[in-house]
Amino acid sequence: MSSFAIDTMNKSSVADAARRAKAAARRLALLTGEFRNAALLCAALAIEERGAEILAANERDCLDAKRVVGEGRMTPALYQRLRTNEQGIAEMAARVRDVAALPEPLGCQLAATELDDGLTLYKVSCPLGVVGIIFEARPEVIPQVASLALKTGNAVILKGGTEATHTNEALVSVWRDALAHFPDIPADAITLLHTREDVSEMLALDGEIDLIIPRGSREFVRYISEHSRIPVLGHGEGVCHVYIDRAADWQKALAIAMDSKIQYPAACNAAETLLIHEDIAARLLPELIAALRSAGVEVRACPRTAALVPSPELVPASEDDWATEYSDLIVSIKTVGGFEEAVGHIERYGSRHTEAVVTEDAGVAARFMETVDAAGVFHNASTRFADGFRYGLGAELGISTGKLHARGPVGLDGLTTYKYKLVGDGHTVASYSSGERFFKHRKLRDER
Amino acid sequence: MSSFAIDTMNKSSVADAARRAKAAARRLALLTGEFRNAALLCAALAIEERGAEILAANERDCLDAKRVVGEGRMTPALYQRLRTNEQGIAEMAARVRDVAALPEPLGCQLAATELDDGLTLYKVSCPLGVVGIIFEARPEVIPQVASLALKTGNAVILKGGTEATHTNEALVSVWRDALAHFPDIPADAITLLHTREDVSEMLALDGEIDLIIPRGSREFVRYISEHSRIPVLGHGEGVCHVYIDRAADWQKALAIAMDSKIQYPAACNAAETLLIHEDIAARLLPELIAALRSAGVEVRACPRTAALVPSPELVPASEDDWATEYSDLIVSIKTVGGFEEAVGHIERYGSRHTEAVVTEDAGVAARFMETVDAAGVFHNASTRFADGFRYGLGAELGISTGKLHARGPVGLDGLTTYKYKLVGDGHTVASYSSGERFFKHRKLRDER
Repeated sequence: MSSFAIDTMNKSSVADAARRAKAAARRLALLTGEFRNAALLCAALAIEERGAEILAANERDCLDAKRVVGEGRMTPALYQRLRTNEQGIAEMAARVRDVAALPEPLGCQLAATELDDGLTLYKVSCPLGVVGIIFEARPEVIPQVASLALKTGNAVILKGGTEATHTNEALVSVWRDALAHFPDIPADAITLLHTREDVSEMLALDGEIDLIIPRGSREFVRYISEHSRIPVLGHGEGVCHVYIDRAADWQKALAIAMDSKIQYPAACNAAETLLIHEDIAARLLPELIAALRSAGVEVRACPRTAALVPSPELVPASEDDWATEYSDLIVSIKTVGGFEEAVGHIERYGSRHTEAVVTEDAGVAARFMETVDAAGVFHNASTRFADGFRYGLGAELGISTGKLHARGPVGLDGLTTYKYKLVGDGHTVASYSSGERFFKHRKLRDER
Repeated sequence: MSSFAIDTMNKSSVADAARRAKAAARRLALLTGEFRNAALLCAALAIEERGAEILAANERDCLDAKRVVGEGRMTPALYQRLRTNEQGIAEMAARVRDVAALPEPLGCQLAATELDDGLTLYKVSCPLGVVGIIFEARPEVIPQVASLALKTGNAVILKGGTEATHTNEALVSVWRDALAHFPDIPADAITLLHTREDVSEMLALDGEIDLIIPRGSREFVRYISEHSRIPVLGHGEGVCHVYIDRAADWQKALAIAMDSKIQYPAACNAAETLLIHEDIAARLLPELIAALRSAGVEVRACPRTAALVPSPELVPASEDDWATEYSDLIVSIKTVGGFEEAVGHIERYGSRHTEAVVTEDAGVAARFMETVDAAGVFHNASTRFADGFRYGLGAELGISTGKLHARGPVGLDGLTTYKYKLVGDGHTVASYSSGERFFKHRKLRDER
């Protein structure tokens, strides 16, 4: 077992690991961007050089998993996600190099104000500190989050799906060994937890851990945020809608509805419900439903929709349907009286993820985009665009449906915060409150 | 009793008020900046015009409070804060006009990227939605937070200290009546809760309320964040330090130490502990302690400090002292072996609020400002500068010691979030994943 593995991780040792991670974070905050990037390139090389070792560990996990699949305790899809190969190794290394090439996220002057002669205030981006990340059994996650964390000067505590235990241990070992060439990077910059009990202990360490990113089901994310005082960045679910207005261009409407539903139905940014303006429903619905059905989509319809397109193959939509993230080739369709009903439906059932309107009416589009409360509000574009790479963020940590800190696809920004640096020359507040001196508040760099 | 007061506020009616606030927020999001500013000016005028009514209500509160003070159940200081007068009314109105004059916080393009021809992504500032604010018995808080909320397009649910019940009701009545002249502003944009039970109910409404700002003791803030899934913006406490390095200029050191402690000791940004480098302690301490004592400050000293300045008037500092926010004319002094011990002490006992270093050594200053994890890290300046008005933010909602969303003195930014607006022309993701089209990701406006 490699040196990084903590054999008997118990209450005190999780707390101890978190304390060591915090001490590591203090040292990471001092590294220059050039240094962090050099370390990332070294880690990328190590992944390639020790690819065979990583694949061997992955093979062990896959053998174990095969038995579980055979016993019906793991789906073949999950098994496929667990398995990696030489191309997977090359991609892991390439993604780490991509992160190294991203613009420097730390030390950015977000704002600067000369408060008075010789007294200047800087608002500067800086690392969060220690970030806990809990993720599914996918081999590529460790190099991905470890590189984002190092790029942003944060220490990470990781817990991956148990099915990938050997792969994860091999990857963390490769990562730590590569960074051991850099004496200024403490080994505790990355820590791997092993059990669910470790995670429970971690949730209590709000003095050491600054952010938790849980990846997984909505229930899992909710469980984490209910059992910890540590801030949580995550998304509960993606119940996304496409509202086809009466002023919609039909070709765009059909293309966007189809793409939003079928391009990758398991994604959180896939649409679950189509809302159709009643003025065009009778003419649009037959063509739309035929297209969906020929793509293998099961259609669940509200009574008005069913009345307009009578078909034994339409399933009546229940109340539950409107609140369900199918993550599958199923769609619910509702015919609405107009804008207000559409927006009201989205407010009631939407998950604040991504909402699209299809219309040629600029006024309707503007009103939709102002009124609808979601991380993404799209006009004449597929909901599937809601993604960090498509947005050009360079890397994606996840998608947040919360409104604070980071919203929507989260890139490096999600792992940084800022601090105010005030540089003076012996300045005291008394001299301002006495009227002896006055603030100038000259903006040197404005935030917006 | 005016129309806004909710006489029998119970479980269902708090939830109902929150739902109405949420509906109001949807309408507020559509108002232009000019409109919101006009409404603010109208509210400022109404405060002046109905000043006598507000003062009469305040007089009732003060009469009630006097009895309580007489019975020893309220301190004279709290009574003084509760009381207002004609000048107080004029100041309330002036502060509302100040908020109207601030730069527009909504609809700011924070970033823009052309993803492809005809497909542009905008990151735009927008309101949070519904904000719950719980505050102490001070008359000026209602116009202050109501104006910040309206400026940022948010609906607010307020609960003030019960001692100011009549004043608060009068102020909310004046505010609502003034805004009733603007039919586009829903009355539910501002709601006043009346009891602690109302607050408990509010904490459960995470589907309606986007942020809670509790103002009050550390215990109170902690209670709120432990009893709600709604994000909380607040500061627990302010245990701030001044570290006087061996390379400090003595005049600056004395001025900054004194100002940080005595300029307004009840403030959260006042210093509680002075850390003195051992190389200068023997020479600096006698003068420093004499200055503090002549200003009426009680000095609690670590053993090394006490040994250097033997005096029967020095109180020995206990372990508790290092973790205590005195909010009073008391200071603890510790002689430290150097930078590492100073930073270690701050990491252990500091509250991540504001930390200052006094030194002429630029390297020490830079290392202090990078390493110390606090909302404000100051070089050769008093900790008392940590304040929204002194920072030039124009308005201060409070000071956050959390690292997410908003940190340090929080201005209008704390009440806004952003959304991604994607404007396309029928664009689908399938055409990019098929290789038919490629992303351009041309930055039109970069965030940093």
